[in-house]
Amino acid sequence: MSQPLTKVGIVGASGYTGEELVRVLARHPHVQLAAVCSRTLAGKAVADEIPRLRGIVDAGLLFSASSPADCAASDVAVWFLALPHGVAAEYAQPLIAAGKRVLDLSADFRLRDLALYKKYYGHDHPAPALAAAARYVVPELQLDDAWKQAQLIACPGCYPTSIQVPLVPLLRAGLVQPEPGRLIINSYSGVSGAGKKADVGYLFCERDSSIKAYGIPGHRHIAEIEEQFGVAAGQPVVVQFNPHLAPMHRGIATTIVVPAAGVTAAQVEAVWQQAYAGRPFVSVLKSGDFPDTAHVANTNRVAMSVVADARTGNLIITSVIDNLLKGAGGQAVQALNLLMGWSETAGLR
Amino acid sequence: MSQPLTKVGIVGASGYTGEELVRVLARHPHVQLAAVCSRTLAGKAVADEIPRLRGIVDAGLLFSASSPADCAASDVAVWFLALPHGVAAEYAQPLIAAGKRVLDLSADFRLRDLALYKKYYGHDHPAPALAAAARYVVPELQLDDAWKQAQLIACPGCYPTSIQVPLVPLLRAGLVQPEPGRLIINSYSGVSGAGKKADVGYLFCERDSSIKAYGIPGHRHIAEIEEQFGVAAGQPVVVQFNPHLAPMHRGIATTIVVPAAGVTAAQVEAVWQQAYAGRPFVSVLKSGDFPDTAHVANTNRVAMSVVADARTGNLIITSVIDNLLKGAGGQAVQALNLLMGWSETAGLR
Amino acid sequence: MSQPLTKVGIVGASGYTGEELVRVLARHPHVQLAAVCSRTLAGKAVADEIPRLRGIVDAGLLFSASSPADCAASDVAVWFLALPHGVAAEYAQPLIAAGKRVLDLSADFRLRDLALYKKYYGHDHPAPALAAAARYVVPELQLDDAWKQAQLIACPGCYPTSIQVPLVPLLRAGLVQPEPGRLIINSYSGVSGAGKKADVGYLFCERDSSIKAYGIPGHRHIAEIEEQFGVAAGQPVVVQFNPHLAPMHRGIATTIVVPAAGVTAAQVEAVWQQAYAGRPFVSVLKSGDFPDTAHVANTNRVAMSVVADARTGNLIITSVIDNLLKGAGGQAVQALNLLMGWSETAGLR
Amino acid sequence: MSQPLTKVGIVGASGYTGEELVRVLARHPHVQLAAVCSRTLAGKAVADEIPRLRGIVDAGLLFSASSPADCAASDVAVWFLALPHGVAAEYAQPLIAAGKRVLDLSADFRLRDLALYKKYYGHDHPAPALAAAARYVVPELQLDDAWKQAQLIACPGCYPTSIQVPLVPLLRAGLVQPEPGRLIINSYSGVSGAGKKADVGYLFCERDSSIKAYGIPGHRHIAEIEEQFGVAAGQPVVVQFNPHLAPMHRGIATTIVVPAAGVTAAQVEAVWQQAYAGRPFVSVLKSGDFPDTAHVANTNRVAMSVVADARTGNLIITSVIDNLLKGAGGQAVQALNLLMGWSETAGLR
Repeated sequence: MSQPLTKVGIVGASGYTGEELVRVLARHPHVQLAAVCSRTLAGKAVADEIPRLRGIVDAGLLFSASSPADCAASDVAVWFLALPHGVAAEYAQPLIAAGKRVLDLSADFRLRDLALYKKYYGHDHPAPALAAAARYVVPELQLDDAWKQAQLIACPGCYPTSIQVPLVPLLRAGLVQPEPGRLIINSYSGVSGAGKKADVGYLFCERDSSIKAYGIPGHRHIAEIEEQFGVAAGQPVVVQFNPHLAPMHRGIATTIVVPAAGVTAAQVEAVWQQAYAGRPFVSVLKSGDFPDTAHVANTNRVAMSVVADARTGNLIITSVIDNLLKGAGGQAVQALNLLMGWSETAGLR
Repeated sequence: MSQPLTKVGIVGASGYTGEELVRVLARHPHVQLAAVCSRTLAGKAVADEIPRLRGIVDAGLLFSASSPADCAASDVAVWFLALPHGVAAEYAQPLIAAGKRVLDLSADFRLRDLALYKKYYGHDHPAPALAAAARYVVPELQLDDAWKQAQLIACPGCYPTSIQVPLVPLLRAGLVQPEPGRLIINSYSGVSGAGKKADVGYLFCERDSSIKAYGIPGHRHIAEIEEQFGVAAGQPVVVQFNPHLAPMHRGIATTIVVPAAGVTAAQVEAVWQQAYAGRPFVSVLKSGDFPDTAHVANTNRVAMSVVADARTGNLIITSVIDNLLKGAGGQAVQALNLLMGWSETAGLR
Repeated sequence: MSQPLTKVGIVGASGYTGEELVRVLARHPHVQLAAVCSRTLAGKAVADEIPRLRGIVDAGLLFSASSPADCAASDVAVWFLALPHGVAAEYAQPLIAAGKRVLDLSADFRLRDLALYKKYYGHDHPAPALAAAARYVVPELQLDDAWKQAQLIACPGCYPTSIQVPLVPLLRAGLVQPEPGRLIINSYSGVSGAGKKADVGYLFCERDSSIKAYGIPGHRHIAEIEEQFGVAAGQPVVVQFNPHLAPMHRGIATTIVVPAAGVTAAQVEAVWQQAYAGRPFVSVLKSGDFPDTAHVANTNRVAMSVVADARTGNLIITSVIDNLLKGAGGQAVQALNLLMGWSETAGLR
Repeated sequence: MSQPLTKVGIVGASGYTGEELVRVLARHPHVQLAAVCSRTLAGKAVADEIPRLRGIVDAGLLFSASSPADCAASDVAVWFLALPHGVAAEYAQPLIAAGKRVLDLSADFRLRDLALYKKYYGHDHPAPALAAAARYVVPELQLDDAWKQAQLIACPGCYPTSIQVPLVPLLRAGLVQPEPGRLIINSYSGVSGAGKKADVGYLFCERDSSIKAYGIPGHRHIAEIEEQFGVAAGQPVVVQFNPHLAPMHRGIATTIVVPAAGVTAAQVEAVWQQAYAGRPFVSVLKSGDFPDTAHVANTNRVAMSVVADARTGNLIITSVIDNLLKGAGGQAVQALNLLMGWSETAGLR
């Protein structure tokens, strides 16, 4: 291959999303994983600290503790930020100023409405100018190529990905009417969604055999879901979003109920087929088949289907993703692939 | 204790519900577990075939293969039927004719409307006269003691139990308006809900890490939910019921969304507190705390709470049970305790 | 029942073993659970902090923060200590001085040889005089009733229980020759064995799908195993003990290989049958049937069996227990039952 | 890439090993997956029947029901047989006669001593001449390239792979003395090792939370382990092999105890380092670090380490693999890569 590799780096590589990014990028045909940063693990070997990466990264690859300034000064062209919100913006600013491409997996640049940011995150936005320049990108939902010019890509949250892929095309097509309070979304997430935190609540013995709701009614992901839905529908949309924890490592299962208002399952499927024709990561299952988190684990795929319930007048839409790939690191790499002009699936099959 | 023990028997004791009934009844202070029947395991020792019962039943206790006539002719006063629908009726008829008390855990006697039975179960009801005489009993939802005279008790399904305990008092009080299609119920069940069937779909390797919907839109439990809700509301009720499988042995987690229509969480809680005052198996958690299947595993309890979502105008109610106890065998024993005048918790703590 | 209830208390009730003790003692027919102490949770309701205990303890039961002096001054007659080693001794001393009965679940009083204590625990024994007075009690292995006079009972560790029940009778009978290095013990423990610690290593996402060895070759439980084996065999015994973590909440599975030296499976079984005749918590399975951790979960039982391998000249002994019951709190209550003259199974069925 | 793709086929593709072979071969850079055969699923789409393969194989790829003669007559050059023993031989004979390359994952051609085959498999070997021509191949253990000429490759069993990789170099180097009955091997396998069988024993509810031994003392894998060890040691070797089931989808954890006889951990490591220098799939962890099944899941890797126990005079060796990859399909592809002169890791990273 004569094309030179693109140098990429990851900041915040010690968590579950960071691990997944390392796994994907280390095997990606068009990139060189040139920097893997973690303040807490700096100087240690990646494969020692995250043994699931043994054999995937070189044994000699070390975590570095690069500061924002260090990252900006390096020759790494593309940076993935797998950092807590707030911290991500501290890195994004010098990196963008230095001309780097940034794919941010935090919540810092997902919202255009910074009042919404303040409401859901509890403080003023740390970098308003940058927020205005960022693009929120679910790759399959982009209507043209303008986003590929964005220097700063805001990667969607895990729940929002599982929700937008089925619903945005329907909102755009007017098949789903956003009546207030009638878009009912229940999502069930694997425990890795909570991150790699030393917290009693995420111990094996607490989460085994456990399903429970949490964060109702004000989960932060509502902000980006509703903002994106508003754009898609051309009017404000209010969603009922109920997140839950489920006893599995990875995966999100989302079940959506909306009034059918005369729309049939076939019409929904037709919109999906058109919206996702040729897209390698979206599977529309036939009505009556239901997607299964186990079937998309360790993939960048979305699987989904729709059922119309004649008795209730509702459409029931179910979708599944792997929260760490399509819901985080995989989708970020997918975006990079597209904006660089590489195959959409490079590194992701 | 001078009171003589009541002789009880179980037909269909080889499955997961049967096992749970054996476990509870073998340690129950007021009964003698006099017969444990299973055609497939007849003549074998219960503790050998179901090793989780070792130490709970006598090593010498054998499965018997008693026919309906044998059971009817025996001196066992109370029979629990843990049989497939259709088969249960074959036993219930001679047992009732012989004056036995029968607690049926199948679907055979849950419905008053036998057209509904035919619609959901695909054949004419096998014993219409008996169906008319049966009482469907969630113990906490009985308004008076008339049910205790019933010779044949229809024990509710697992999903319906997790749904009726939170909702029936609200429907009765008029706090929930049964607008068509707006009672949205998502339930997630442990794999034991599917029974002890040699089926590839329920293998460890298929269900591990897997959440998936199934049986939407026509799950059979809809019939009993809607019939009971109709009685509670005084008008027909149509529910959106979405069952799912979750990667755990036991437990059901139900999340219900209904329009609040001005009703507050406090009003819901007040109705619950009144309906369930003094009931030992119902816990109302405070709003913002969410019940967890792991917290009710191996108990006969229901835990539930409500949140009002001001943004959406909905109430979100979550409830959890152990599908094999409160959702099956435990609730059946609870009913027996009450109709015999024993402590409601006998054998169930 | 005319007999007055015995007041019991638990110190260190916030962990997994403490929870199990609360569960058992709250339902025990002969005791009143009069004190549940935890420094970290003092003043909070037990059923709120450990929701799995909801419905098992009174809603009003609070954790107290009693100091050693407070406990000694109270009218509670029997104390269970579910504390880290070192801390347990701080409580045991004033309690014993005040005439209380103490069942200690820590390692503080398991060893007679205090040099061994120092070697394995890294510091001088905190209460040597008390150590000399304590009795190490696996109830099934006591040869007479002298232990019942002990004021301080040292409850065995979880692994050692699963190992001693099968092996001690064989060592006593001389059926197993303790050749150096030839008693090979592999044990696999559920994650609760690690306690309720906020540690990344015990997160769901780290332990799911994971089996790994740890603590080889110097696990602390070796000390008590070898000391007890030495007494049983009448000579020093050295064991190869290999502990592992397994992806389950509770349970220990132990597999032991020893040279048969002409001993048959039938001879082993005969010794077991004699040693455990009438003991309610020990099941000897027939050779070729293998015990299963799932079959003893939530019980105080040991199940075990032996196979002779003619090709290798070895005996293979497998045993299983629930680490939190027979391996901790259940066995402590079993000891109390016996020394108080109650039914051995009181509170444990 | 100018090199033409090699056409490969799989017979018996409906099971867990078959699925894994499809996954690997569909993405392999040098092969074309030209035939995926299953009698039970013939005519159906692979991605419909095994939804975990959706997005990995073309939606149009169908299972075919090719007979041995059909396979032999096809233009597919290389066949993987993922069939039960006995059936594999029926395919291997015509395929070999037709000049095809065959990688057999069954037990049919693993043994040179056909009396051993009869002893462990209960019937005469179905194709003795072919058995003599087959090569048993753990790629890392081949001492020269002669095996690459074999037309029929017998792929090792899952347990034997986890056992031979650590031990064969030590037996060859004389570091482990094969004293009778003193090579003690305990292995713990994920449930997928039992195959995709509709059997109550492998249901989620039976295997969840369950560790149990099985098949002691005569598990069939003993035959190939001992035969290979005999060659490595230059004398007969008898092993104590104790297999167990563990509550996880995939993975094998093996713990081996052998008398050290003066050999140090460092000596063992030195032999391993030499034997596996440059081998991409073997990781030697430093003594005191223990390998973890979760760290090799979904990889073709072996991780292992050794500890010397001065107290017992034993070496304790622990190893882990993914039973479906390094223990089955992955290792078969690794063998193909090497004999075709491709990169050893092609399709396996």
